[in-house]
Amino acid sequence: MKIDVLTLFPRMFQGPLTESIIGKAIEKDLLQVNVMNFRDYTDNKHQNVDDYPYGGGAGMLLKAQPIFAALDAVKEKNPDTKKRVILLDPAGIPFTQSVAEELADEEHLVFICGHYEGYDERIRTLVTDEISLGDYVLTGGELGAMVIIDATVRLLPEVLGNDQSAKTDSHSTGLLEQPQYTRPAEFRGMKVPDVLISGNHKKIKEWQDKESIRRTIERRPDMLETVKLSEEQQRYLKEIKQEN
Amino acid sequence: MKIDVLTLFPRMFQGPLTESIIGKAIEKDLLQVNVMNFRDYTDNKHQNVDDYPYGGGAGMLLKAQPIFAALDAVKEKNPDTKKRVILLDPAGIPFTQSVAEELADEEHLVFICGHYEGYDERIRTLVTDEISLGDYVLTGGELGAMVIIDATVRLLPEVLGNDQSAKTDSHSTGLLEQPQYTRPAEFRGMKVPDVLISGNHKKIKEWQDKESIRRTIERRPDMLETVKLSEEQQRYLKEIKQEN
Repeated sequence: MKIDVLTLFPRMFQGPLTESIIGKAIEKDLLQVNVMNFRDYTDNKHQNVDDYPYGGGAGMLLKAQPIFAALDAVKEKNPDTKKRVILLDPAGIPFTQSVAEELADEEHLVFICGHYEGYDERIRTLVTDEISLGDYVLTGGELGAMVIIDATVRLLPEVLGNDQSAKTDSHSTGLLEQPQYTRPAEFRGMKVPDVLISGNHKKIKEWQDKESIRRTIERRPDMLETVKLSEEQQRYLKEIKQEN
Repeated sequence: MKIDVLTLFPRMFQGPLTESIIGKAIEKDLLQVNVMNFRDYTDNKHQNVDDYPYGGGAGMLLKAQPIFAALDAVKEKNPDTKKRVILLDPAGIPFTQSVAEELADEEHLVFICGHYEGYDERIRTLVTDEISLGDYVLTGGELGAMVIIDATVRLLPEVLGNDQSAKTDSHSTGLLEQPQYTRPAEFRGMKVPDVLISGNHKKIKEWQDKESIRRTIERRPDMLETVKLSEEQQRYLKEIKQEN
């Protein structure tokens, strides 16, 4: 997969792109990431990238020209790739796991990271997708791009060490994960549930499945509205409701 | 505000914490951020921070001990601050602008960033808040912590240059922002709407208010269910519905 990032703060990407899973994917040559400063593509001598909004209002807007020119450069360098051009914006569609899965199938992603008050509207004509991380406001699109890159790249084949990991995560199964424990069996007076150290695999599996449903009911009942439960899971659901 | 971050990947924070608004807030002494590697707090000679889950399952879990010890160190160093201890986790409450507003009033935030498959359940006993960025899975909690820090810090007094900016953003007003334009009035054949260069401030304001509602209806009708519209805004809403 190829990724280009258009930003005014390329150094923000240094840590996140060299550490952790993204860095490993780049090392293994499963991913190429190119971070470019679109200030380098301005056609005015002061290298201005922003200007006052027409009609007044607070803050500055990103001008169209530098971003159009930077994207032209990406297209010139990669004439043959199929590109998804993603604008990070609070007015975009909310990012979800299924968007990550869709992006993981793509050949070339281009992220446009805004900063300051907003974008000149004409920049939106360049993009295939407008995505929002969630209902909150960030200073710029950089962290949003990093989050989307992380969620997407970890789904690429061979990126995660253990193929199973990506599939059993919360949000991949449609349910939250059950409580999990590792050694020691007792820590500061808190014990691991007996069933988990019983060695009875059938009972362990039942406990895990049921507690996954319990956690989802308690914390995110909305998730149960869209997930398709097996007969066994429906039985656990009923049992939990009776217990309460 | 004081922020401590417990992570296995402290270098991920280098770029994000020195660039952009967070870096400026640190420079202005409005914010102190301390990123610590909880691997330094292990009590085993191999400095292991993770182990296999009891009862089986894919991946490794973070052990309780190093995180308990790192948090003890934060408490020892800051005996008098009131702390919100935040665990980044897909099973947490979804992060929203109102959570950011709440956190912006706090004195001391501590973030626990997981990695690998998950946490030993006993780690949850340490925290005041479990927060999820959204319904997607990330490799670790680091990017989540950065996003929450960014959204929160920009709300602190004196951090943003222009006080007005934070208040008129999408998600702060409960509506998406209207399309915005900056110079030039024509770019690659695309023109700025006439009204915005008319100089008629009343008409401009009406256009902006109406287009803000139009964008919200088109893209995020769910947001209209919770926002309280003024009489004027209700009239625009009716007009837009009739236009369609």
